[in-house]
Amino acid sequence: MTKPIVIYGSSDSGNCLKVRWVAERLGIPFEWIETNTFSGETRRPEFLKLNPAGQVPVVVLADGRILAQSNAIMLHLAENSGLVPSDAYDRAKMFEWLFWEQYSHEPYVAVRIARLHYLKQREEDLDPSLLTKGAAALARLEQQLRETPHLVGVGPTLADVALLAYTRKAELGGFDLASYPSVQAWVRRMESTLGLAPFRAH
Amino acid sequence: MTKPIVIYGSSDSGNCLKVRWVAERLGIPFEWIETNTFSGETRRPEFLKLNPAGQVPVVVLADGRILAQSNAIMLHLAENSGLVPSDAYDRAKMFEWLFWEQYSHEPYVAVRIARLHYLKQREEDLDPSLLTKGAAALARLEQQLRETPHLVGVGPTLADVALLAYTRKAELGGFDLASYPSVQAWVRRMESTLGLAPFRAH
Repeated sequence: MTKPIVIYGSSDSGNCLKVRWVAERLGIPFEWIETNTFSGETRRPEFLKLNPAGQVPVVVLADGRILAQSNAIMLHLAENSGLVPSDAYDRAKMFEWLFWEQYSHEPYVAVRIARLHYLKQREEDLDPSLLTKGAAALARLEQQLRETPHLVGVGPTLADVALLAYTRKAELGGFDLASYPSVQAWVRRMESTLGLAPFRAH
Repeated sequence: MTKPIVIYGSSDSGNCLKVRWVAERLGIPFEWIETNTFSGETRRPEFLKLNPAGQVPVVVLADGRILAQSNAIMLHLAENSGLVPSDAYDRAKMFEWLFWEQYSHEPYVAVRIARLHYLKQREEDLDPSLLTKGAAALARLEQQLRETPHLVGVGPTLADVALLAYTRKAELGGFDLASYPSVQAWVRRMESTLGLAPFRAH
């Protein structure tokens, strides 16, 4: 029997759920250790030994080696699977979306979800650019998904998994998904692909 | 003769230089189209047709297809080269550094360089967290480079190329590299590897 990988993650975190979804979809056995990021658990010395960056998700692989960064972990788990395109250009476009997600989507959409929904901060205390930049990211997704059913190539890839994580909960961050109908349809399609119950904000 | 790739980039931008350095190191013929990001060139309709995200670098490949995101472009150009480790775990660690660079290093170190040096903003007008988070990123690099001569495995990889881009100019962002001696030595080593003149802030 293969030793399961151990995923340290928070069930509230889209970055952590990405890794869980890929492991589930590919039938990779894993143990999930719930790790609360808001209570300082990821700043404790024993956690910093696992990941000096003090972030979840972090994974202990079957051989004991450690890996951090949600998108890097997904890529490692999904190598040679159908979630990574075999065509070199499609693979490059998947990487383009993965880096764009971490730079131009997550810092706005996920940060607003965390502040408004989990930390109960008030809209008027937030930097207004979080809203405009998050809306720009959703508009960029809408533009692509109006043309193609998935972000890259002919089926779901890690790009769809990564972007799904926070996009499906965007309403918790004060974004109205009804303004992005192709995104909304893609969210439902990807939830079905991954076997997730449709997320409802209310 | 192979048609050269076309790189739209700004010579002031580390993200753009990353792509140039990889093309030069691997002997990939390219045409460089200088694109000024501060004058609004990347917001013009003809540019947005190339990259709807309105960012440089963006590359037109030999077959006319388009690719954006510095790290995705590097990965595409460097596939099957010595800059990408053949060992699966080392490759995963390289990805970990590449995503960490875009999420936890560039938004602080590069943003301070842009604001203080290129946009001539004043220190007192900047969000103080840019300084503390940038310093934390440099300390994380120092921690790794005290232990190993390169970020991953036994030689230079795309992780070193990506992190070099803004780290070597960190002093323009008000960071004192003398506080990070292993980083400073690695900068000189990587500049030599890539055939670059040592960068001097003064």
